[in-house]
Amino acid sequence: MVIRVKTIRLISTGGTIACVPTENGLKPELNARQLIDLIGGNHSNIECIDLFSMDSSNIQPEEWITIAEAIRDNADCDGIVLTHGTDTMAYTASMLSFMLAGIKIPVVLTGAQYPAVYPDSDGRRNLENAIIAATSLTGGVYICFGNSLMLGCRAVKTRTTSLNAFESINYPYIGTVNDGRMLALYNPPHRNEFSFSVELDSRVALIKLIPGMSPKLLDCLIDCDIKGVVVEAFGLGGMHSIRRNHLESIQRLMERGIPVVLTSQCLYEQSTPDIYEVSRPLKDIGIISAGDMTTEAAITKLMWVLGHTKELEEVRKLMQTNLIGELTK
Amino acid sequence: MVIRVKTIRLISTGGTIACVPTENGLKPELNARQLIDLIGGNHSNIECIDLFSMDSSNIQPEEWITIAEAIRDNADCDGIVLTHGTDTMAYTASMLSFMLAGIKIPVVLTGAQYPAVYPDSDGRRNLENAIIAATSLTGGVYICFGNSLMLGCRAVKTRTTSLNAFESINYPYIGTVNDGRMLALYNPPHRNEFSFSVELDSRVALIKLIPGMSPKLLDCLIDCDIKGVVVEAFGLGGMHSIRRNHLESIQRLMERGIPVVLTSQCLYEQSTPDIYEVSRPLKDIGIISAGDMTTEAAITKLMWVLGHTKELEEVRKLMQTNLIGELTK
Repeated sequence: MVIRVKTIRLISTGGTIACVPTENGLKPELNARQLIDLIGGNHSNIECIDLFSMDSSNIQPEEWITIAEAIRDNADCDGIVLTHGTDTMAYTASMLSFMLAGIKIPVVLTGAQYPAVYPDSDGRRNLENAIIAATSLTGGVYICFGNSLMLGCRAVKTRTTSLNAFESINYPYIGTVNDGRMLALYNPPHRNEFSFSVELDSRVALIKLIPGMSPKLLDCLIDCDIKGVVVEAFGLGGMHSIRRNHLESIQRLMERGIPVVLTSQCLYEQSTPDIYEVSRPLKDIGIISAGDMTTEAAITKLMWVLGHTKELEEVRKLMQTNLIGELTK
Repeated sequence: MVIRVKTIRLISTGGTIACVPTENGLKPELNARQLIDLIGGNHSNIECIDLFSMDSSNIQPEEWITIAEAIRDNADCDGIVLTHGTDTMAYTASMLSFMLAGIKIPVVLTGAQYPAVYPDSDGRRNLENAIIAATSLTGGVYICFGNSLMLGCRAVKTRTTSLNAFESINYPYIGTVNDGRMLALYNPPHRNEFSFSVELDSRVALIKLIPGMSPKLLDCLIDCDIKGVVVEAFGLGGMHSIRRNHLESIQRLMERGIPVVLTSQCLYEQSTPDIYEVSRPLKDIGIISAGDMTTEAAITKLMWVLGHTKELEEVRKLMQTNLIGELTK
């Protein structure tokens, strides 16, 4: 019996995992081969690609396109591991999920809370676990962090320093990785066709409401050339309707053809404008409910949808359709 | 032996706990006495005060002042229970913590995920537990929800529908309430002097960053007459410095005397601009670190501080001083 060793490509983009100490603070400098060398052992089946070396606080829509194209161009292997800073990893994983919908191989993002060169770093274990996940999973975009494996479009970074930095929000964990083996917990969603599409419109704003927020902050989005808005409202979707009328400002945005998507500032569980008297008018003015999508998924999906259509009803339909597991219907 | 029965005042402000179904959705209509009647039993030691009846999505700085004044005027009792909608309860609890710093009696906020008139509502149990907490605690502002008791300035609503809707963030739970008894878990912070102060400036903006965010959204805050800004940055405090330069926009705000407070969009753990090269310039331009304060505490504290001083160095000093347990030094 011949067991074919799976070929994995490691694409590096920088992040804490690749950081070294400098006199100005931590800076990403290690390349993919140096990261592999740090974990030791035999990794002759891993091909290394250095895409760029950035702190993920600076990763923006332009980088998302670069990463998606690199993954497409390197998809003739059994799985891809993408090292990435943790700060915006959930946004990148969400956007890649839309750009690479139905990809046939697993794309596993990982990184670290502490530089891989540090003796007690989580980086080496995270990278090893991500490689195991990339050889074990079916197609899709995932984050492997700590011992947890989750769908990319459901991940949120919830901790700034602990090693279990990411959580799967409103969706089961796909698996855990321990002692060199992946334990599958939940079947990831399956899509028949691979559709590569990097068109997006980054002119999207996120507004997280606070009590007393001036409605001017919503009104000024028109002057800022914003083409879509995600509102993180209170609880299930509440906002001010008296004294400072957020509803009227949202109506003005929507009358100008700017889609407004409603989500909750609560980390867990869904939003809906259906239940309270104070929220019902939101439905009447046509606000688009994000359901149980994470803010990261709602933001990246809206950018991606607006790259494909500006027609309000089309935007609404796509936002409220589960494309790759990001939304529970 | 004579055991003096403690006198508790119940102040109602509306919220889901007081809601009844109407054809337009749930609407808060029950008063304090009706709520007490719903839990049954002997509550002759409870005095009822109806302050207003609002969905907490509409509770704004003006209501915070009304509530704080009502608490001050009714503090000649052993404890106060305040029923309040869950959507903005964490903001109100944080603001009351500053306005009523050092209050000698416990002020316990509670509410419900489901109307108290519903057969399976959590409202009746929450109210009973809050009454027990108000008879058992030392002075301070707390939230009692489900079985959990937490410091008001550390609470965040993290779930939109589950009964354990609130979490204590970066701070131990003060206690649990079960079967009619409070189990103390952690001593709340103590302040010697009661200082009542409701002055605030609500012209504060919260900006939660997203990858690709236009720096214009920070620049336009000047035109919106904003006097203070809280930025929910990536991870420990990262933001874009290339292509879309958020740092420059923040510098422009601070040069105009508008304090900018840095916090993290991660729910748990602290923020700091000290560690990464990409964040160091934030420190150089004088950004104010929120440490491990919740966003709710950072926002309400900044409003409250700006009600007392507009002098940038005074604002910085107060924001970085632990006043009532909101900040770990």
